[in-house]
Amino acid sequence: MITIVLLGYGNVGQHLYNVMEAAKDVDVVQVYNRTKHKTLKTPQTQDLKALVSADVYIIAIPDDAIGEFSESLPFKNRLVVHTSGGAHMDVLSSNNLRGIFYPLQTFSKITKVDFSTIPICVEAENEADLQLLKKLGDCISEKVVEISSSAREKLHVAAVFVNNFTNHLYHIAETITAENKLDFNLLKPLITETARKIETLSPAQAQTGPAKRNDKKTIEKHLKLLENSKYRDLYEHLTESIENSGE
Amino acid sequence: MITIVLLGYGNVGQHLYNVMEAAKDVDVVQVYNRTKHKTLKTPQTQDLKALVSADVYIIAIPDDAIGEFSESLPFKNRLVVHTSGGAHMDVLSSNNLRGIFYPLQTFSKITKVDFSTIPICVEAENEADLQLLKKLGDCISEKVVEISSSAREKLHVAAVFVNNFTNHLYHIAETITAENKLDFNLLKPLITETARKIETLSPAQAQTGPAKRNDKKTIEKHLKLLENSKYRDLYEHLTESIENSGE
Repeated sequence: MITIVLLGYGNVGQHLYNVMEAAKDVDVVQVYNRTKHKTLKTPQTQDLKALVSADVYIIAIPDDAIGEFSESLPFKNRLVVHTSGGAHMDVLSSNNLRGIFYPLQTFSKITKVDFSTIPICVEAENEADLQLLKKLGDCISEKVVEISSSAREKLHVAAVFVNNFTNHLYHIAETITAENKLDFNLLKPLITETARKIETLSPAQAQTGPAKRNDKKTIEKHLKLLENSKYRDLYEHLTESIENSGE
Repeated sequence: MITIVLLGYGNVGQHLYNVMEAAKDVDVVQVYNRTKHKTLKTPQTQDLKALVSADVYIIAIPDDAIGEFSESLPFKNRLVVHTSGGAHMDVLSSNNLRGIFYPLQTFSKITKVDFSTIPICVEAENEADLQLLKKLGDCISEKVVEISSSAREKLHVAAVFVNNFTNHLYHIAETITAENKLDFNLLKPLITETARKIETLSPAQAQTGPAKRNDKKTIEKHLKLLENSKYRDLYEHLTESIENSGE
């Protein structure tokens, strides 16, 4: 049994709590959070001095706050990990043994996620802790990988492209359809298929469209249609980027 | 029974052929294509003069070629439609009765698609033809919508954002992972979830990440990591666009 104290009960914290509570070899013994949650059966505290002993302390709070928070923990030489894709392991206080437990996924409060398919990226200062984090990862996911902080930072940049930036393109499409009194739902099968296609094809193989086939006439027409849109420049930049990428 | 002559047997043509052949109220009576296909049971021709009579002639060839091709058809006053999202109905020759039968989806030769969920956008010069195209659409899809050429052009721009541009972001992420000897597959659950999320949330509600939360520190770090990348500018433009869009 691996015992866990969960530090932070926001979006990521709640998802981790749910999946770890359900895992038979993991026991979340305590949850620390600034505000108390009524529905939680696990013992809670709002006082760092009241933290109990555990195999792993998992910090699930905003990136900017991790450093200072880890510095404020009132114990030493215990395994303390954070769950961020973008923050280096070094941001954690050296008072404790440092590690990373990063689930590579986008979480939202209302949608349930299946952790078994989510890659868990782990890292630790020493080998025994790394093995423990791998074991913990195996309890909730089928895909646990050791990734260094510097590689994880790059993975996080790539994640921003496929998640935040892609979602922004969805937003632009929704704006264009709304402005023209068209139903955004018309585009949803296309969105689904675009994501599904790269299960079997590389994105380079899957690429189609005016930029790919250097169809200047269509590109010009689209730029004209976007004349009064704040997204015209982005259409141009993305088109150029496809043309220059040799996909 | 609606009889069809299919003009063009490329990517879209083959998908349309398969779904129409399987539909019980549609009969593809002839396929015209420059090269003969060995496996096709339906009568084929490479000679426009040999085209037989049908209720609907469906042109499925590249946008640029539609106009000239439709002009070369050796008959008049029959219903001739094209299947393009980006081309106006007017590109079709006025020798015949014009219409549009546009399946809003991305097609690739190797992946099978379920037409029942694909929106079919129809348009016609006269009401009787419009009703016929709607009926034809109903035979293969649960979602048939009447959309004017000018609205369809805008829908097509939106489709470029969610399909071609989104796929390009996948390509960028694959490039970043490859350059850093990371496995692109690690990002696939994130790609799937990003697309799935907007089934229940609007893209604006679903947005997260450094640009959305105005996290300058992470943005600066990412730009530094992309210092030698040709995708650095695009990261910057997309970040600005999210900041300015008020998502």
